[in-house]
Amino acid sequence: MNHDPHSVGIVSPQCAEFDEPLPLQSGASLPSYRLMYETYGTLNADRSNAVLICHALSGNHHVAGRHHADDKYPGWWDTMIGPGKPIDTSRFFVVGINNLGGCHGSTGPMSLNPATGKPWGAAFPVVVVNDWVHAQACLADRLGIEKWAAVIGGSLGGMQALRWTVTFPQRVRHCLTIASAPKLTAQNIAFNDVARTAILADPDFHGGDYYQHGVAPKRGLKLARMLGHITYLSDEGLGGKFGRQLKSDGYQFGYGSEFEIESYLRYQGDRFADVFDANTYLLMTKALDYFDPARHFGGSLPAALAATAAKFLVVAFTTDWRFSPERSKETVQALLDAKKSVSYAEIESVHGHDAFLMTDPSYMQLMDAYLRRVADEVGA
Amino acid sequence: MNHDPHSVGIVSPQCAEFDEPLPLQSGASLPSYRLMYETYGTLNADRSNAVLICHALSGNHHVAGRHHADDKYPGWWDTMIGPGKPIDTSRFFVVGINNLGGCHGSTGPMSLNPATGKPWGAAFPVVVVNDWVHAQACLADRLGIEKWAAVIGGSLGGMQALRWTVTFPQRVRHCLTIASAPKLTAQNIAFNDVARTAILADPDFHGGDYYQHGVAPKRGLKLARMLGHITYLSDEGLGGKFGRQLKSDGYQFGYGSEFEIESYLRYQGDRFADVFDANTYLLMTKALDYFDPARHFGGSLPAALAATAAKFLVVAFTTDWRFSPERSKETVQALLDAKKSVSYAEIESVHGHDAFLMTDPSYMQLMDAYLRRVADEVGA
Repeated sequence: MNHDPHSVGIVSPQCAEFDEPLPLQSGASLPSYRLMYETYGTLNADRSNAVLICHALSGNHHVAGRHHADDKYPGWWDTMIGPGKPIDTSRFFVVGINNLGGCHGSTGPMSLNPATGKPWGAAFPVVVVNDWVHAQACLADRLGIEKWAAVIGGSLGGMQALRWTVTFPQRVRHCLTIASAPKLTAQNIAFNDVARTAILADPDFHGGDYYQHGVAPKRGLKLARMLGHITYLSDEGLGGKFGRQLKSDGYQFGYGSEFEIESYLRYQGDRFADVFDANTYLLMTKALDYFDPARHFGGSLPAALAATAAKFLVVAFTTDWRFSPERSKETVQALLDAKKSVSYAEIESVHGHDAFLMTDPSYMQLMDAYLRRVADEVGA
Repeated sequence: MNHDPHSVGIVSPQCAEFDEPLPLQSGASLPSYRLMYETYGTLNADRSNAVLICHALSGNHHVAGRHHADDKYPGWWDTMIGPGKPIDTSRFFVVGINNLGGCHGSTGPMSLNPATGKPWGAAFPVVVVNDWVHAQACLADRLGIEKWAAVIGGSLGGMQALRWTVTFPQRVRHCLTIASAPKLTAQNIAFNDVARTAILADPDFHGGDYYQHGVAPKRGLKLARMLGHITYLSDEGLGGKFGRQLKSDGYQFGYGSEFEIESYLRYQGDRFADVFDANTYLLMTKALDYFDPARHFGGSLPAALAATAAKFLVVAFTTDWRFSPERSKETVQALLDAKKSVSYAEIESVHGHDAFLMTDPSYMQLMDAYLRRVADEVGA
């Protein structure tokens, strides 16, 4: 893979330690924290070509390239980021970051609580999207980035991108919010609550302090992931890929996995439960539920967005029913009402919500064309 | 409630015992079985006015009226059935039945296995829709009903109604299949499998033999029900009823139920887990997954329906995404291809899949008009 001219190649995570406290929206405060991040490309002399990639529920700072030549998988958005790719690392300085509360090295429930010397566990404060944005801004300061050429994210990542333009209206040149929504619906919250209930009800959860019991609520986390997975894919996409195919001839008349879709889902659930932290999953779903930038502006999204100086690209996918095109159009309408510059694209795809991670050609072309203009604009 | 002229009033369940074995599609056989049922109205002299009501996942034989004057709730389809109601008990003889595998008195996992003297539990055979139809036919024989004026059901009940016309093409005059589908999609199966996995993973499940442990897998069943419930309602309906309303002022920054929708779902889940049997839930979801009448006809639904002599009413609801109108149209198209008589109605409703249990006026009018013609036709 090192010889792929469009790959960022072998990359190394970096770690930024912050000793000053971070006040959180809940009223709690983190006394100190660390953020894991990766960068690809080179920051130009006037520091105008930096792009921030915000991750979704299960993502992290490892966005592109490989840590070792023999890594099975590259970073989670490797298809989008690299030399000559839409987020072109020969022009942009790209920053990926693991959010607070994560389980990939940034301070989170698995980290040691300095007050007790034990893992934070249940005591880790609930964080919201705006807390992440504040932490990301601290990293930007550390890296000497006053203004992002673009802040980009899909799903929960798109919420962070949108929130950046509200919290730091002068620090974002372009906001790309993809397969996202300005707030969750009751149905969205309901799905998250089933996932949380599955984790909380797992006897191995131990009120969130399972680390010291040497166990993890894997059954609950598996269920949460299986359910989430269904909502990431479209009915049509699942139908095309799995349909009613059986693993063997004929019905088994039992409760093992016999349809291909069952086998796939259970495998995905098990694999995820082995590598992800349940407390982080809880935190991430709560950040989703709480996201509502209009809330402190009397429920008016145009009012929330009034101060922003960013230009926007809003992208939605036809078969995404988790955050349908209608949800993206709410953001677009609010931006129009606020008299902001916004482009909107609705991409034909069978991949449902996950389409933001896929490579449907018109999506890739759109991203490429838009970001090429951004690069020109910042002289990258 | 006794004085409501449109209620069937106080009703009593009845029990039919069958001592002959019932061979099942799985190859297993029930040595003997009992069926709980209720009837409303009077069978006419030529036995032409009988209507069978088939229940969905969590339903039973108690379809209308009350068992006691102080019952809090009437039967599950009381809005549809009674004197002067669409399924008019002053004209029809209505039969409600609890299906095999149920947990309301018919032979099921909670019943004693005559071979062991203990509850069947995990040993209860997996049953399919066609097994239910055969058992229902045995009850029809017992009641002296050669031909139903109509077989009617919503959701899984609609699948039984459809299956009747395939298995016993000469015994059904009218088939009313509502908010149903000719088979599940991969997404449908996936949701069922998450529900099953929740139950199977509950430490109180004990491989299905939890009765003798004096426990029940209530956590798993609660999760299954919460998830199911989301799929019964529409995004739009949930939005209208709950939106993002909080139970108290401001975010709680914890994992208790704080949005109204969470509170509602958890309550529904708990209530259901207290009264329903988890083994029955497993069986019902499996019957849904397996349903596919075209399967033994080379995948051709028109071929499966070729022999039926019934007339059909197919009803779908605009916001039903569990079994969307497109799924009902598959049935309609197959019936047209098979040159059968079919009427189709797509009802505007915000109630999602649950609309089949609701009283949207155009739905009630449609049912009333259609069944009035059926009553006229059979001289009821």
